Amino acid sequence: MTQTFTLRRQVEFNHCDPAGIVFYPRYFEMISAVVERFFSDGLGYSWASMGLLEGNGTPMGDISVRFHNPSRLEEWLTFDLTVKRLGRSSATLIVRCSCEDEPRFTCEATLVHANIKKGRSQSWPDTARRRMERYLTETETGKTPA
Amino acid sequence: MTQTFTLRRQVEFNHCDPAGIVFYPRYFEMISAVVERFFSDGLGYSWASMGLLEGNGTPMGDISVRFHNPSRLEEWLTFDLTVKRLGRSSATLIVRCSCEDEPRFTCEATLVHANIKKGRSQSWPDTARRRMERYLTETETGKTPA
Amino acid sequence: MTQTFTLRRQVEFNHCDPAGIVFYPRYFEMISAVVERFFSDGLGYSWASMGLLEGNGTPMGDISVRFHNPSRLEEWLTFDLTVKRLGRSSATLIVRCSCEDEPRFTCEATLVHANIKKGRSQSWPDTARRRMERYLTETETGKTPA
Amino acid sequence: MTQTFTLRRQVEFNHCDPAGIVFYPRYFEMISAVVERFFSDGLGYSWASMGLLEGNGTPMGDISVRFHNPSRLEEWLTFDLTVKRLGRSSATLIVRCSCEDEPRFTCEATLVHANIKKGRSQSWPDTARRRMERYLTETETGKTPA
Repeated sequence: MTQTFTLRRQVEFNHCDPAGIVFYPRYFEMISAVVERFFSDGLGYSWASMGLLEGNGTPMGDISVRFHNPSRLEEWLTFDLTVKRLGRSSATLIVRCSCEDEPRFTCEATLVHANIKKGRSQSWPDTARRRMERYLTETETGKTPA
Repeated sequence: MTQTFTLRRQVEFNHCDPAGIVFYPRYFEMISAVVERFFSDGLGYSWASMGLLEGNGTPMGDISVRFHNPSRLEEWLTFDLTVKRLGRSSATLIVRCSCEDEPRFTCEATLVHANIKKGRSQSWPDTARRRMERYLTETETGKTPA
Repeated sequence: MTQTFTLRRQVEFNHCDPAGIVFYPRYFEMISAVVERFFSDGLGYSWASMGLLEGNGTPMGDISVRFHNPSRLEEWLTFDLTVKRLGRSSATLIVRCSCEDEPRFTCEATLVHANIKKGRSQSWPDTARRRMERYLTETETGKTPA
Repeated sequence: MTQTFTLRRQVEFNHCDPAGIVFYPRYFEMISAVVERFFSDGLGYSWASMGLLEGNGTPMGDISVRFHNPSRLEEWLTFDLTVKRLGRSSATLIVRCSCEDEPRFTCEATLVHANIKKGRSQSWPDTARRRMERYLTETETGKTPA
């Protein structure tokens, strides 16, 4: 059965715009934080441990977000992350954000395990890969070339 | 002939992550700034003039970005905005970011002219609409329901 | 005995600069979040309840921070807030940030209870004021004119 | 005669809070940008050229800001930077922000030329030092130990 990685965050003043709702670039900071905790707490393969200053990381290939309803100050948001597709050195993640069953946004993001300085992708380490499979929502795995 | 709205920005320390490249949520702040100047300088219909505190604005419906190459400190980025689709109360914008002819990212974003408090979309004002048509890349206009 | 309002936050990728340490403007976002939770959870007088869109709030009068040691990715920071001075419509807060007993920064900030639109300060409500007194580190209270 | 390093920035939607005014942590991002351009354009000694990934930079020792008046969407802000004190490996900068002669804030910031990894301060390079002296507002120089 597919596991879900969940994080909760409260909307802060810092996130809100002059219309009183969350300014969407702040959502991308939250998505980054969810993915960061997923790698660290969910996979045991934190960004800090990858060697960021040496250029290793998981740069974003593409990301798309559909916004359903606005979020307001002090609301508690729930972020549910699953893995849609797992490639040799890439992964497509789905992050669903909601507030008490009202959907706020749905995000699909594909990131690559790579060394940015060398501009070269790297296979996922075995342990991280096996753990990521638990969050996989689709049956087929590893069919994709990248 | 299609017009392009262009803005240039230099990458600041503020935008860069521990890997020394632009942190992607900062790109969304830049995209927001490009769209803000487009409404103000390109269309003469600034967000400030819409009545933000009353809930009027152009909330984002969906946005997707494909990243091509990383950006680094002090580089000058060029943002080129055109309109892909123009609806009654919505618009799909394309923002291409490049640095000296090397593409950095391509963004497609659909925003809605709406009052957030009332949760109601509003037709574009005539003047703003006519000006937006100059940036339209496709021949068909106004066929879409929203 | 003086009470201390405490919040803990983990350093995120989002907070770090190309030198791999927390970029200091991010500390001010954290300070804002600590003050926000203090008003909401410590005083039961949240910014959301003050009527922000009507211009009520606690704008910052002045703020100063002395940095002791840099903070790094994944570290857990502890923020301890006390009240140094409590005026009729103002308060001077001290926020000490540390990581496992190593000090990171000390902040002193004076904010004013005011309506920004009218440009007018307002006395603290009685309940909020009484609760704030519990966090007061100095014996003399209310001697200051503002 | 003392030189002033000046930068102008327009207030963006991105900078404004639910009260419709600039959120003060955004001012610290602007201050950082002014100091960044001062080092690069004013002194010809950019942060990029210092070797950030090796740990060289100008970490902030302390910073204090007094806020005079709020800033609003679309306003053009002027930032004037001078040097108050120049030490062997440190400098105290003054940044005054105004909008059409109305003061917005005054900032005093002391930064250190240092390698963060080694935790060691470094004398200013001669050329950068000589150029910094042009912006010095006080007559006495180099008397301070740090």
